[in-house]
Amino acid sequence: MRRYSVILGNLGNTRDRFCAGYKTNPSTMEMLEHAAKIPYVQGIELVGTWDIRPGNVQEMKRALSDLGLKCVSIIPDLFADSVYWKGAYSSKDGAVRRQAIDDTRRTCDMARELDCETINLWPGQDGYDYLLTADYELEREWEREAVSELAIQYPGLAFALEYKPKEPRTHSYLARMADTLLLAQETGQDNVGVTIDTGHAFVAGEVVAESIVLAKRAGNRLFHMHFNDNFGCWDDDMIVGSVHTAAFIETLFWLDRCGYTGWFSMDQYPYREDAAGAIGESIAWLVRLDVLQQEYRSDIEQLLALGDPVETSRFLRKILL
Amino acid sequence: MRRYSVILGNLGNTRDRFCAGYKTNPSTMEMLEHAAKIPYVQGIELVGTWDIRPGNVQEMKRALSDLGLKCVSIIPDLFADSVYWKGAYSSKDGAVRRQAIDDTRRTCDMARELDCETINLWPGQDGYDYLLTADYELEREWEREAVSELAIQYPGLAFALEYKPKEPRTHSYLARMADTLLLAQETGQDNVGVTIDTGHAFVAGEVVAESIVLAKRAGNRLFHMHFNDNFGCWDDDMIVGSVHTAAFIETLFWLDRCGYTGWFSMDQYPYREDAAGAIGESIAWLVRLDVLQQEYRSDIEQLLALGDPVETSRFLRKILL
Amino acid sequence: MRRYSVILGNLGNTRDRFCAGYKTNPSTMEMLEHAAKIPYVQGIELVGTWDIRPGNVQEMKRALSDLGLKCVSIIPDLFADSVYWKGAYSSKDGAVRRQAIDDTRRTCDMARELDCETINLWPGQDGYDYLLTADYELEREWEREAVSELAIQYPGLAFALEYKPKEPRTHSYLARMADTLLLAQETGQDNVGVTIDTGHAFVAGEVVAESIVLAKRAGNRLFHMHFNDNFGCWDDDMIVGSVHTAAFIETLFWLDRCGYTGWFSMDQYPYREDAAGAIGESIAWLVRLDVLQQEYRSDIEQLLALGDPVETSRFLRKILL
Amino acid sequence: MRRYSVILGNLGNTRDRFCAGYKTNPSTMEMLEHAAKIPYVQGIELVGTWDIRPGNVQEMKRALSDLGLKCVSIIPDLFADSVYWKGAYSSKDGAVRRQAIDDTRRTCDMARELDCETINLWPGQDGYDYLLTADYELEREWEREAVSELAIQYPGLAFALEYKPKEPRTHSYLARMADTLLLAQETGQDNVGVTIDTGHAFVAGEVVAESIVLAKRAGNRLFHMHFNDNFGCWDDDMIVGSVHTAAFIETLFWLDRCGYTGWFSMDQYPYREDAAGAIGESIAWLVRLDVLQQEYRSDIEQLLALGDPVETSRFLRKILL
Repeated sequence: MRRYSVILGNLGNTRDRFCAGYKTNPSTMEMLEHAAKIPYVQGIELVGTWDIRPGNVQEMKRALSDLGLKCVSIIPDLFADSVYWKGAYSSKDGAVRRQAIDDTRRTCDMARELDCETINLWPGQDGYDYLLTADYELEREWEREAVSELAIQYPGLAFALEYKPKEPRTHSYLARMADTLLLAQETGQDNVGVTIDTGHAFVAGEVVAESIVLAKRAGNRLFHMHFNDNFGCWDDDMIVGSVHTAAFIETLFWLDRCGYTGWFSMDQYPYREDAAGAIGESIAWLVRLDVLQQEYRSDIEQLLALGDPVETSRFLRKILL
Repeated sequence: MRRYSVILGNLGNTRDRFCAGYKTNPSTMEMLEHAAKIPYVQGIELVGTWDIRPGNVQEMKRALSDLGLKCVSIIPDLFADSVYWKGAYSSKDGAVRRQAIDDTRRTCDMARELDCETINLWPGQDGYDYLLTADYELEREWEREAVSELAIQYPGLAFALEYKPKEPRTHSYLARMADTLLLAQETGQDNVGVTIDTGHAFVAGEVVAESIVLAKRAGNRLFHMHFNDNFGCWDDDMIVGSVHTAAFIETLFWLDRCGYTGWFSMDQYPYREDAAGAIGESIAWLVRLDVLQQEYRSDIEQLLALGDPVETSRFLRKILL
Repeated sequence: MRRYSVILGNLGNTRDRFCAGYKTNPSTMEMLEHAAKIPYVQGIELVGTWDIRPGNVQEMKRALSDLGLKCVSIIPDLFADSVYWKGAYSSKDGAVRRQAIDDTRRTCDMARELDCETINLWPGQDGYDYLLTADYELEREWEREAVSELAIQYPGLAFALEYKPKEPRTHSYLARMADTLLLAQETGQDNVGVTIDTGHAFVAGEVVAESIVLAKRAGNRLFHMHFNDNFGCWDDDMIVGSVHTAAFIETLFWLDRCGYTGWFSMDQYPYREDAAGAIGESIAWLVRLDVLQQEYRSDIEQLLALGDPVETSRFLRKILL
Repeated sequence: MRRYSVILGNLGNTRDRFCAGYKTNPSTMEMLEHAAKIPYVQGIELVGTWDIRPGNVQEMKRALSDLGLKCVSIIPDLFADSVYWKGAYSSKDGAVRRQAIDDTRRTCDMARELDCETINLWPGQDGYDYLLTADYELEREWEREAVSELAIQYPGLAFALEYKPKEPRTHSYLARMADTLLLAQETGQDNVGVTIDTGHAFVAGEVVAESIVLAKRAGNRLFHMHFNDNFGCWDDDMIVGSVHTAAFIETLFWLDRCGYTGWFSMDQYPYREDAAGAIGESIAWLVRLDVLQQEYRSDIEQLLALGDPVETSRFLRKILL
């Protein structure tokens, strides 16, 4: 029933701001093969234009088909191309804003060719670094306009906005669940929703389960899920379960409770680990925690109605220890 | 033009969870007299039922009038009364939810008697402490219902929802600007808006100026301002300007830019300081920073359009050093 | 083998800065009885002068003996008495510094009468709130002098310094493990060491296991352990295991590895929970996690030598899921 | 009297983990020329082997001499070379540990040729990412051994250990001031001390001025200063004064008070700014704040003795507004 996927680049890029790469990058096709061998993986997210370009769409289509993988989403590159160094949809430069929309449009066209239903928009450069350097009102409006334009033009695609409080900018415009929902609503389009990256939510100080509820209340706008773990203050992009346990049980419960039927995609940065192994571990945690929360669904419902932390603790001990 | 006020309790309570009180509490009337002597203070926020109860409304009205003070807002006590220990509007106990609404209604009635236009709602106990102990969906809906009911019943009053990420609960339902705006919108009432407490916004990881813009975009819903400063990770309730400088300049600029015409209210906890002195300092900072941002308004507009941190730094040095 | 204890006040005080008490406080003797009934509890920590005063030492001694409980440590009240509002050992007022030492001395005398070997020093008011208000050099030296004087005068007692980054002051002088070790070393006395409160360490950004190693390297100075859990940014004083799981397994492993033989004391604030139940849950988690880490000791040693997060994740899944 | 310098790489590298470079990198010699033109800059810090290698030492020496610049420190590359991906001095691989020491030794030799007195050691890869993957005891001991060996072998050089809580690892072994002082003391060598990077200290939750005092108390071990600013939760490497103001005044005061006579070096990452402009701004802030703290030295001494936040606020307003 659950459908697991992985962002292809997770199997490659290991660059940080100090080191150009901890490991040698495999080719796109090698990464695909590695991904296909991870247990439970049935889908792939591609970054355009890293993984997918007009020139290799057909080749990619065949490769995915050969490996039995579905293209779950495409993430237009609004963050790695230095043209977007000071913003994409919200750049102060109108020509750059136009290019960002055009680039995304090309991504949308490729998505249609690949029977991919979701565009995961992470406009990582849209934000600001210093106080008193940004016109929050104007730039947020530009952000909304761009998303609206795309959503109207591609009614058959779901646009999932991925929020993150900071990095690469010190402050992002799509920073937390609720501000992203406001923007989604402001577009007036039903095909604009949100991607929760669990690690981004932790950094934002959110309880993921509550964010899932916010998205449901705002018109069933949870479109996509990225999973990873971290220590709470930065997007460490670690294996699920390495820091938090109960939080993931609760997250899985509420995904079901709120009717989420989308993909469970892994989004990690295994700088120093075997990439396929690290991604496989996250899935292994989720698969098992998911079984647990499904098995104990009525117990959990009772705990939520009861509101007694002592009983909740007893329950967690019972299922974990 | 600016109107400064203070929450009366700031001049009294100095309790924390370890010490029952660092100083002896003055009486309500003594606090009023202290407040009236702070330069620029023209208004008072009262906590019902600490400061104001049905039995002392007339006495309070006379006292305020004698001192030339306006009642700027009343804050119903949804946090100090132990009946609300596990929530007020979102309590799992229907009788408690009913009592919270009734208590607030009494506050609203007193507000009308005092010609006070704003009810500052800080439902501090509405939230949760532990994962897997709360039904976020149901409880958030109860929160919305209560606010809706009150707003409909008192169309002449402005209900300003004060958000705060945590404390006294480890997680509040009204946690950040954007989720509070979503709830305000869900009420469908124009007299439901938001109070920004600058310190709460810092703890939430927000840039206050951006939060002001969010509130404007969501239908001009910034109703009230509480000022204080902190070190960024907790609601230290300190003197404005003791940690942040540029952030307050930017905040004041955007309040004007977004057309805010409400009160500037001080909300501090001077546990170990002369209370009137500490509050007076905050106002003194704001008055002077306000003069600066007004004087340099066109320079600031240019900096926001330019987006060059080097020029912004040069500007800040010019006006501060 | 493990010896579990509890801070008596955990079973009582539920005050925070907003509410004077969420529950009615039981008497000292009632709290003792509640404590004695918690499974595994063999010891008690007392706060002087809350729980223990010269006038009730003999009564307490009998009560403890009747209940089969040992007095594990006494914590002199350097935080709740408003005389210490601006510091105890590091107060700018010499008379207050003297009183703090004298008060502690009285606590030490009571400890000897109760055959208690450890004084847990938490000088919570020693610190500062605002920048440019403290002479860090002079005040830290006063802190050291006081601790030295006490340690010299009571060579038979162990002085365990409990660090905490903030609260009730915005900054504490004994803030983190390493600065507290520096101060302990500066006293030149072997009977000065450190208490780790796991929650304080989380707030400090520490990995508890690494802090245990630091204390060992600095001359076996880990004297005492307080257990609780939190969400990482504030001392929420929650049930062990409600947020972190792996962190406690690692902590228990390293306590053994570094030869810790002291008490495992619970330090929580069950504001809205059944106190004995919440404390009992923490112990239940620790007992079971402790069995696990002991059972898999050689596996853990291998994982630490290997340094492969994928294998560590596999191990954690095996023992938890 | 003050001597200002800059880390040469600040004028070049603008890579982050998403984008390979926001700007085109100038050559080493171009960067030197840019640096020489920044007002007040008299010294340069070089990263070996980025900027300086055995093959270009003489060329560098001439270039520095021609530009009237002094080589203030060399920072051996223990972070960008992928051989150190899992640690340098504390790598689990003995051959890598040996190479790290040998590489540093080559840096020391170059330092002597350049009449450079300080080796700034930032072992950024020494740490760990996941719980239960590191032997904190063994690895910390390796860290100490390496530093000891180097300090003994090069008694004429000062080894300044730069601490940082995290990044590139999720946890660094040299994480905060006090743990780094403990390690410095454990080497038993007087030529081992500490570098404060103000931004790293902010992320660590430290008040820089207090950290300066800790270093003084531990045997005058503050050897070097790196300046930059950030929003408190991450090493944003921004222009000094863009977030904090009072903190830098206090820092400068305590540097004087504790007898610091070393360099003031700028360490920033001007990803999207004119690099020389951004560095020049930091220096301009520091120069002016330094004048202020010197001018008001006796006032500040009085404020520290007084401990009244209201008076401190009044003072800050007087000098800033």
